[in-house]
Amino acid sequence: MEYTASVIAEYLGGEVEGNPEIAVTSFARIEQGKPGQLCFLANPKYEHYLYTTKASIVLVNKNYELKKPVECTLIRVEDAYEGIASLLELFQKSKKDNKKGRSWRAKISWSAKLGKKVYVGAFAYIGKKVKIGNNVKIYPHVYIGDGVTIGDGTILYSGVKIYHDCVIGANCILHAGAVLGSDGFGFAPLPDGGYKKIPQLGNVVIEDDVEIGANTAIDRATMGSTIIKKGVKLDNLIQVAHNVFIDESTVMAAQVGVAGSTKVGKYCMIGGQAGFGGHNVIGDRVIAAAQTGIIGNVKDGKTLRGSPGIDLTVYQRSYAIFKNLSELRNDVFELKKQLTQLNDNKSAK
Amino acid sequence: MEYTASVIAEYLGGEVEGNPEIAVTSFARIEQGKPGQLCFLANPKYEHYLYTTKASIVLVNKNYELKKPVECTLIRVEDAYEGIASLLELFQKSKKDNKKGRSWRAKISWSAKLGKKVYVGAFAYIGKKVKIGNNVKIYPHVYIGDGVTIGDGTILYSGVKIYHDCVIGANCILHAGAVLGSDGFGFAPLPDGGYKKIPQLGNVVIEDDVEIGANTAIDRATMGSTIIKKGVKLDNLIQVAHNVFIDESTVMAAQVGVAGSTKVGKYCMIGGQAGFGGHNVIGDRVIAAAQTGIIGNVKDGKTLRGSPGIDLTVYQRSYAIFKNLSELRNDVFELKKQLTQLNDNKSAK
Amino acid sequence: MEYTASVIAEYLGGEVEGNPEIAVTSFARIEQGKPGQLCFLANPKYEHYLYTTKASIVLVNKNYELKKPVECTLIRVEDAYEGIASLLELFQKSKKDNKKGRSWRAKISWSAKLGKKVYVGAFAYIGKKVKIGNNVKIYPHVYIGDGVTIGDGTILYSGVKIYHDCVIGANCILHAGAVLGSDGFGFAPLPDGGYKKIPQLGNVVIEDDVEIGANTAIDRATMGSTIIKKGVKLDNLIQVAHNVFIDESTVMAAQVGVAGSTKVGKYCMIGGQAGFGGHNVIGDRVIAAAQTGIIGNVKDGKTLRGSPGIDLTVYQRSYAIFKNLSELRNDVFELKKQLTQLNDNKSAK
Repeated sequence: MEYTASVIAEYLGGEVEGNPEIAVTSFARIEQGKPGQLCFLANPKYEHYLYTTKASIVLVNKNYELKKPVECTLIRVEDAYEGIASLLELFQKSKKDNKKGRSWRAKISWSAKLGKKVYVGAFAYIGKKVKIGNNVKIYPHVYIGDGVTIGDGTILYSGVKIYHDCVIGANCILHAGAVLGSDGFGFAPLPDGGYKKIPQLGNVVIEDDVEIGANTAIDRATMGSTIIKKGVKLDNLIQVAHNVFIDESTVMAAQVGVAGSTKVGKYCMIGGQAGFGGHNVIGDRVIAAAQTGIIGNVKDGKTLRGSPGIDLTVYQRSYAIFKNLSELRNDVFELKKQLTQLNDNKSAK
Repeated sequence: MEYTASVIAEYLGGEVEGNPEIAVTSFARIEQGKPGQLCFLANPKYEHYLYTTKASIVLVNKNYELKKPVECTLIRVEDAYEGIASLLELFQKSKKDNKKGRSWRAKISWSAKLGKKVYVGAFAYIGKKVKIGNNVKIYPHVYIGDGVTIGDGTILYSGVKIYHDCVIGANCILHAGAVLGSDGFGFAPLPDGGYKKIPQLGNVVIEDDVEIGANTAIDRATMGSTIIKKGVKLDNLIQVAHNVFIDESTVMAAQVGVAGSTKVGKYCMIGGQAGFGGHNVIGDRVIAAAQTGIIGNVKDGKTLRGSPGIDLTVYQRSYAIFKNLSELRNDVFELKKQLTQLNDNKSAK
Repeated sequence: MEYTASVIAEYLGGEVEGNPEIAVTSFARIEQGKPGQLCFLANPKYEHYLYTTKASIVLVNKNYELKKPVECTLIRVEDAYEGIASLLELFQKSKKDNKKGRSWRAKISWSAKLGKKVYVGAFAYIGKKVKIGNNVKIYPHVYIGDGVTIGDGTILYSGVKIYHDCVIGANCILHAGAVLGSDGFGFAPLPDGGYKKIPQLGNVVIEDDVEIGANTAIDRATMGSTIIKKGVKLDNLIQVAHNVFIDESTVMAAQVGVAGSTKVGKYCMIGGQAGFGGHNVIGDRVIAAAQTGIIGNVKDGKTLRGSPGIDLTVYQRSYAIFKNLSELRNDVFELKKQLTQLNDNKSAK
């Protein structure tokens, strides 16, 4: 399908700058754009490609100022990143959905209740008393333990494993290999140095609009629930320990770890490989750089870096000096020498 | 089922402080306790909840000193954490086990030998010459390669993958998505800058009472065995490389990585996201803080932090100064200025 | 099968030092070698075992100088590590391959095209219009989404999940639980603090001779492809985000994370748990120590350590001072005191 710049601009509520009749058939990243393709510019790092791209159309922010003339046609929108998201979404919806029906190769317990238009792929396992909403997609090799509940429109990709009694909301996306409801890591030390397992009798509750990345693991609570609130986005290979609570619309990049019983606030943005200590309370809108070790409670709006995490600007300032620490030490040695000399001279007088 | 404080105290060998006839039907975390529920207090961070909880009964340590009167009934036991573990265990055992029999949807090789009361879920795969003990539970989508041995009472949750010839002990728990026996990461450099794969012909040996977390990966040895000794507890998303040896009752939190051929001693406690370099020997009872990079050999009983890991107290002291490194540098600048002035004055005299 | 030292030396183009007729039947690590076994010495850390090993034969580097007499027979080769790789390879090839045929328990779409001698294990799922080359091995529980292409000789171990439209080259090895083609982590912020998902319409392209570790995740591109070039080796539990490009023969140890749109050069060696920031360009032959945080662009040939990563030698020098930072601070305090005294004395004069 072809779309002209003027049609796209109208859909997005934007304005064409260039040839309104130029048409595109597919998308590309700005550094790889070819004639007949549409790109976008949101990250200033890629700005120079705007002036060399062969793409026919580029979405840019309304207030973007051209440094020199461009060959492509621009469409100016409020937010180019959101604009491309809308177009990609439109494109995706236009593709025919061929994931339908229940495979006879799946195992669906008699006592499970499935909604309308549920796709169940081959080799999927649906346990006893499971409740599944409408329009849910269950890919091959998904395991849904006894007593699990899943809301409307949720997608479970191949190999997702959900232990018994967990609850998943509506319109969630769980990527391949994600594990929900595995036992929390709880052991009581024994006098002989060994450990006694503490049974984990709680569950995991995932609210609506949550996305969970590939091979991410979320442990069930010891008692009560490990809770992931509405709109949370977790990337791949993340660890969420038992009894954790992650509040609305917080996003965590890949390989983050959250230790047991920690509460993370709303609208936080956590960089990759960061880790949270256990039993802490993290405020809202907290930002942590990648690899930060977040230990102790954190107030709303803090931005952290380092291990343990401290204020980002403090860390950067200190780290800049750390890089030159041998100079600082040499300065101190020199000062000591000079001062000793001064003192020697004085006493020699 | 209802249990009274006096019955619970008798079971645990503890003492009731309050109403011995008050009854509970379920468990809760102390911050969420309601009437009819039993909670416990072990971590001092949660102490204040003891005075506000609505729970009927709270387990506390024998020697815990009340700061003010409480509304709940207390049961004093030697160790509240171990006490709750015992009660949860009792509760779990009282639940009927409905995982029985061998699904006709499983693939069990003719040459495999299974013990008594083995559960084999749908879509499980059991290879040739596999030996499985009594009371083993094999959940759906488990893969057990040729020649694997599994001891009595072990549980393999959905999606566990065990490559050929690995040996798993008795009473182990392997959580969903755990991979045992994948090839070690061994390559010999070639003159053209590429690599030649070194076949990994060994296996993985897991002794008794080991728990392995969700999506954890343990590579097979190049030759001989990667060995996890009795009572080791590994959390989720841990990497254990080829030829590693982890000694008895060591516990590792989530996302720890152990590089090839390293030996880790007994009774170690390793924090989340910590990493071990390769070819090192780590002593017994070593403790590493989260995110520590353990490089080189480590003596018994050390407590480490940092990357590379140094003595915890040294790290903390140095890090406290690191936070104020710009002040220290300014002090040095100021000293230099003053000393220059002093020297100038002197030479001016 | 038995092989004598002289036969092995001839195969490897090496020289026997000791008894050319001594025979071995299996391999062992040098610290565990027994009579009748062959070991190798490549890492100097294990040198002392050479003088105590009970193994019959040890492969050593041509130029290795004996510190004292040895009991075993030596075979001197150009490179002992490559030599053992060749022998292990020979041994592996000599074993009969029993993975053949297509299981009737697999689901293979009618429109999929499979080459010759393809093994398809039980419960494997092969989607529509999939193209699979010759001699490919697809273990049980593998998921191959619609439109995927897989080259000759590639092995997919149990539980590998490949989303639709990804392309895998020839002679690749994908270990259990690896996920390819999951959605990139892309969200556009909404005015209410929530996020709108950006559809990920690209794919993952893996070239020939690539090995991918257990439970590693590689996300599909937003547009275009996430690309892993020829000969790249990725260990277990690695995260590769959308739009990433990893160039030829780069190796990454376990638990590394590469954030979105970053380009990593050729022949790089990345230590475990290291992380790359997004949208950066990393040169060729870059080395990063374990746990390094690689932020910003990096020139060819750099060796980095720290978070953020700086030149390795600078990091080590600074970290050595960091360990003694309290001494340095005390020195500065002492200098301040002395200088104040000096100044006081002067003004008192």
